[in-house]
Amino acid sequence: MRRPRLEPAEEPPAQEWEQALLLAAAYVSDAQYNRNVPFETSPRAIRLYCFYNHWTLRVATYIFICVDLSLALFEEPALYPLPFLATATVEILCLTVFFGRLMHFAKVTPQMVFWKDTKNICILVTIGLTLLDLIIYGSLEAAHIHSVRWSRALRPFFLINLPESRQVRRALRSIRNTLPDILYVFLLFMFSVLVFSLMALKLFGDRGLKTAEGSPYLTNILEIAFELYVLVTTANSPDVMMPAYDFNGWYSLFFIAYIIINTYIFMSVFLAVVYNNYRKHLKNEIRKLVYLKRYKMIEAFNILKVQVGVEFVVQEATWKRLARLVVPDLSSSHLELLWKISDEGQKGHVDRMNFLRLADLLNIQVVTISIKKHPLDVWMPRIYQSSASLLVQRMVRHRVFVWVYDVIILLNAVFIALDEKSPIISRMEWLFLSLYIAEILLKLYTYEPRAYFGRKQFWNWFDVLIVIAALVATVANATIHSARKYNSQQILDIVLILRILRLLRVIVSIQRFRVIVTTLINIGPTMLTFGGLVFVVYYMFAIIGMEVFQGKVHFYDANFTAPDALLCGNPALKGSAFARARYCKNNFNHLASAFLVLTELTVVNQWHVIAGGFALVTHQAAKLYFIVFHIVVVILIVNIFIAFVLEAFFVAYSLEKSEIETAIEKKIQELGVGIQEEEEQDEKPTANLSAKDGGFSGEDEGVERKASKGLYCRIASNKYRTVDALLQRMFESEIAPDDDGPSLDEILSFSPSDMYLKNPNFESSA
Amino acid sequence: MRRPRLEPAEEPPAQEWEQALLLAAAYVSDAQYNRNVPFETSPRAIRLYCFYNHWTLRVATYIFICVDLSLALFEEPALYPLPFLATATVEILCLTVFFGRLMHFAKVTPQMVFWKDTKNICILVTIGLTLLDLIIYGSLEAAHIHSVRWSRALRPFFLINLPESRQVRRALRSIRNTLPDILYVFLLFMFSVLVFSLMALKLFGDRGLKTAEGSPYLTNILEIAFELYVLVTTANSPDVMMPAYDFNGWYSLFFIAYIIINTYIFMSVFLAVVYNNYRKHLKNEIRKLVYLKRYKMIEAFNILKVQVGVEFVVQEATWKRLARLVVPDLSSSHLELLWKISDEGQKGHVDRMNFLRLADLLNIQVVTISIKKHPLDVWMPRIYQSSASLLVQRMVRHRVFVWVYDVIILLNAVFIALDEKSPIISRMEWLFLSLYIAEILLKLYTYEPRAYFGRKQFWNWFDVLIVIAALVATVANATIHSARKYNSQQILDIVLILRILRLLRVIVSIQRFRVIVTTLINIGPTMLTFGGLVFVVYYMFAIIGMEVFQGKVHFYDANFTAPDALLCGNPALKGSAFARARYCKNNFNHLASAFLVLTELTVVNQWHVIAGGFALVTHQAAKLYFIVFHIVVVILIVNIFIAFVLEAFFVAYSLEKSEIETAIEKKIQELGVGIQEEEEQDEKPTANLSAKDGGFSGEDEGVERKASKGLYCRIASNKYRTVDALLQRMFESEIAPDDDGPSLDEILSFSPSDMYLKNPNFESSA
Repeated sequence: MRRPRLEPAEEPPAQEWEQALLLAAAYVSDAQYNRNVPFETSPRAIRLYCFYNHWTLRVATYIFICVDLSLALFEEPALYPLPFLATATVEILCLTVFFGRLMHFAKVTPQMVFWKDTKNICILVTIGLTLLDLIIYGSLEAAHIHSVRWSRALRPFFLINLPESRQVRRALRSIRNTLPDILYVFLLFMFSVLVFSLMALKLFGDRGLKTAEGSPYLTNILEIAFELYVLVTTANSPDVMMPAYDFNGWYSLFFIAYIIINTYIFMSVFLAVVYNNYRKHLKNEIRKLVYLKRYKMIEAFNILKVQVGVEFVVQEATWKRLARLVVPDLSSSHLELLWKISDEGQKGHVDRMNFLRLADLLNIQVVTISIKKHPLDVWMPRIYQSSASLLVQRMVRHRVFVWVYDVIILLNAVFIALDEKSPIISRMEWLFLSLYIAEILLKLYTYEPRAYFGRKQFWNWFDVLIVIAALVATVANATIHSARKYNSQQILDIVLILRILRLLRVIVSIQRFRVIVTTLINIGPTMLTFGGLVFVVYYMFAIIGMEVFQGKVHFYDANFTAPDALLCGNPALKGSAFARARYCKNNFNHLASAFLVLTELTVVNQWHVIAGGFALVTHQAAKLYFIVFHIVVVILIVNIFIAFVLEAFFVAYSLEKSEIETAIEKKIQELGVGIQEEEEQDEKPTANLSAKDGGFSGEDEGVERKASKGLYCRIASNKYRTVDALLQRMFESEIAPDDDGPSLDEILSFSPSDMYLKNPNFESSA
Repeated sequence: MRRPRLEPAEEPPAQEWEQALLLAAAYVSDAQYNRNVPFETSPRAIRLYCFYNHWTLRVATYIFICVDLSLALFEEPALYPLPFLATATVEILCLTVFFGRLMHFAKVTPQMVFWKDTKNICILVTIGLTLLDLIIYGSLEAAHIHSVRWSRALRPFFLINLPESRQVRRALRSIRNTLPDILYVFLLFMFSVLVFSLMALKLFGDRGLKTAEGSPYLTNILEIAFELYVLVTTANSPDVMMPAYDFNGWYSLFFIAYIIINTYIFMSVFLAVVYNNYRKHLKNEIRKLVYLKRYKMIEAFNILKVQVGVEFVVQEATWKRLARLVVPDLSSSHLELLWKISDEGQKGHVDRMNFLRLADLLNIQVVTISIKKHPLDVWMPRIYQSSASLLVQRMVRHRVFVWVYDVIILLNAVFIALDEKSPIISRMEWLFLSLYIAEILLKLYTYEPRAYFGRKQFWNWFDVLIVIAALVATVANATIHSARKYNSQQILDIVLILRILRLLRVIVSIQRFRVIVTTLINIGPTMLTFGGLVFVVYYMFAIIGMEVFQGKVHFYDANFTAPDALLCGNPALKGSAFARARYCKNNFNHLASAFLVLTELTVVNQWHVIAGGFALVTHQAAKLYFIVFHIVVVILIVNIFIAFVLEAFFVAYSLEKSEIETAIEKKIQELGVGIQEEEEQDEKPTANLSAKDGGFSGEDEGVERKASKGLYCRIASNKYRTVDALLQRMFESEIAPDDDGPSLDEILSFSPSDMYLKNPNFESSA
């Protein structure tokens, strides 16, 4: 034991006891969520810590960050302009809130730890720089000198440094760690592009060839390098090749060689390097987290332990109080179940090894399903159990019922596709709507409503919400329409979309489709964190783009007849591909528009046209902005996204239930409160009972006879399937349960190279 | 032992002995190359088998396959037209050859095995169908009725079914096995496209919007579905969005949602499914190969074994004769080394376990390096060892020498980029050329020439070849030029390319670049097998495309003034994007041109323009051809290529030297004939001595003192690094050395699901 923590006496006084429990609760809940932990043991410090982590304060922080970020909508160039004073005041308010929050955090953290954390320093520096910028800009503005609000590009740092943005930070760290490896591949790639450019210049430069637009073809080395870089993204293929190919068929070999080497091989190598690094660093971080959790759990154990015989244990009462402190809304049956699993020998206390599992136990979602009688069965059993009623119920539960509704949905699709102008078809819509409502009512009649609207019954919720929304919107539109005033375009659009979304219900009836969608939904939340990363990068590029390109290109309505409306209000665009493709609305005149342009650049196609257009209205060097964006977003971030999806899929494929989950399941079975899982369950990690409409019918009724308590437990395996949790579990199974792990300092300084000594990475092999 | 093989007597008579050895040799060499093995034991059968595998016959088969495939160049629509009789005669000749080869193979294979092999049946059926087609086409042609030579699309089957096309067959099998998994994802994807199409029709259909070309925007459901499918490939982004976006900014959300769901998520899922299946089936096949090898080695052992004491062993003499029979050009020192490794106890015989390693031992390339004195040192030692000469040598070996030449190369690049019209610059070219020649001569003076031109000294060969080729081409051009007749364009182009390729030498001086390039070169050969797969698919699509689209579009020279030259000779193309982009030369009028169009379609960009053009000149249904091509090539094959590159990189990363290699190295060290490997060797799996110009200087001279035999061995680790071999080695380390493995039938019926019972795949999870 290298932990210098005080060993409490056999029975500490009540006050001290309370304090130890609070501290342990902080450790355990921290091990669960991997947040920072208070290192002071005074109750005041712990209360301050709990207050810091209170949800109201956290939500408030989120709101202020959103306000701070959305300021860009109101500052020049603005979607809704506000005076500088107003935005500056709001910004200073936000900065004050962030600073206050940071100070609060500093109070609950030891100084050493606080100043070691890059996050905190980053926030402090950003606050300072923003204030500086505000002062400079404000004073220059007062003197009527226009300057640049450069600190706005730093705003996403507040978002990144939130404790909850761990995934975004990890992706950013992953990018940073990948840089040295990727740099040399990138340099080699650029070298290859330059060598090919030189060849292209010599081969085609003085042939006097013309492009399809009649401009000279590949005559300038810089222009050639840009064109060939664009060719790597395939955006100008095959146009860039055609003049040479028309001139001589053999020249196509030059371009084919170029595409094979640079587009296919180098881009795959980029993906391989990014993926390899992503995996390496991900595993390292997971290892760190797992050891950190274990370390903290051991600390908590050392606080709470009492000696019984020769071994140190934690008493049942302490254990339960601790669990309740950590998860206040734990149901008592759930808690009892967890205790029965932890206290294997039923001795009234848990030893160290079983105590360490507490955080994992609390993390596993156990669904307690109460099988209750249908309310109608309770209220009027005679009618509900009558033969007519039972026939209806059997009908609804029958497969044919599902098929009939699938046919109805497909018919509906046909009617939607037909023109809705004719009154018969628009009246059909009412028929379909009532059919759907009838379906829901029938199902509610047959199945227990609380089970039907269970928390994890995604598709049932989806059904009902879509139908209700469509009903409301259709009725609203009909009222407005019948009032003969106008046909609200917005409501019509919404009705249309809802009506078509209803078609998605077909997916539910086809097992294989449902499985794929469920898998996607499972990795969805983690996918969303990539949205955070993309947002941060977009925001920075948007701010820079708005500073550089604002007002250069204007969009005029189709009906507007300004002489240069087709040239986006800028004569420099005359004859350009940008104007010809009518890209005027792709501009940086406000934040929303800038985001859209950046999205288009991410999709890559035609990015060279957009880049060329903005280069024409400003300077050729503006193309650099677009090239850098391409490198950062497409080569780095999109590749990390692909790496992530691949990894998530492979983890989902190779997943086995972790040991702890199996132990819980065994216990559930032993206690006789388990729901008989279907036999195929093991083969279908992603198919869950809840996704089945009929899941509560046949089999469950069979169980009902066995146990009369009306309480059933089942592990909600789906809830747990974030890639993070999966990886943690996978890694945990590799550590021996009695392994104390390295010391805290060692854990914090883990590096991926420790882990991969045997497997040389690209860096070290270089 | 479940093998029913006869156990030979203690000392078989000479005749029988010879026969057993030949059969064992067949088994062993087969275990090495995984070819089919003769099951008959008569010497005639074995000789026939050896003759079947003789290189002349194999090369002849290749040549006839090439001839057969290249017939498409001479048949209508032809690049070089030949009459039908001529091509038909050649084709029948080829078919006869293939049939003869197949009969030869049937002779050396047991009937059961022969008819079980799909390859053989496939070839037979293809021959039959081709003959049938030839007869029908020929008779119809005689009656002047034009028909379609459909069997031409089957020709690649001959290529696929070659024993050496194992990798192509595996990739095809991988595609076939992936189909059921990918089918449901694909259906869901199509469903999603259709739902979005319906929404687009309703949202934008009757707005009366116009595209940039002024045509109506998204009014027809089929057209919308096609446009949205194209959007998945990003080829028409953002054009397809612009009219809706111009009309109302919020409509962009529709397209963003579409791109995120279909382009990013679904395409990543496709990659994940393809990759997962690829990996699964690859591992299964490797497992099959490994077990098959072991099975055959055990059979060979049973033939050759004699009893010594209580165990069965193979005598040294037998072992050595066998090794010589299998690899006739084995040097005696190499053989001796292998024997010493196998016969660990120096007993004069090897037991079963060591015998099983024979195939692997023979597979490992051991480079025997003879460190010899420089020939000049031998011929005129006084001059070569003089202080001036030593100074030159030290100079050449110095780092600065490399740097000076790097600067020269960069200077050269600048001069190439400058206009070469001015006489000074063109005279500089001669200076550079002589500098390069001087460099090579100096290096040859300093380093031992045979070591400098060692087999694996890729960069030295590259250097010398490029410089000599440039010298020859420049001289040739100068002679032609000075004869004042003409400046041959072809030679000038070649000179230019060679001159620029010389710049690649800079890569050699930068260690990290060299490593990346070496890695790429190592996985290159296996990458090339993908060329085979792509060729097969292209060939089939090209034949179909030529039948459907030949002559519809014509290319006219830029100087040609036909009235519809700009419309590619087809008035239907008036106003089309195809004609506007001047894509006339992208046609299916002959094989080469068709291949180029298919390449452009593989690169994806603008594929909708090409598809649209050919749909205009034939029928809208022609778009199906392009969509199918996109699905087959981009969604399946390109994804498999990416999966392959990723896997190859990861394997290369995680590679450790296999046990056998380490045993050999240990033995080499023990025997004192090893070259001291650099310390970093282990960290650099891809950096090899041979890549270093100075690899033969310092350290090796140190070794020279230790051993005077002048023979050094080193494992040529690079040579072994095909993904196949790597995977085999990785899998072998998982099998216990005394594991007999399953029976032959079991091995042949391995399926990936046996292997992954624990890890449910997508299929079974559905």
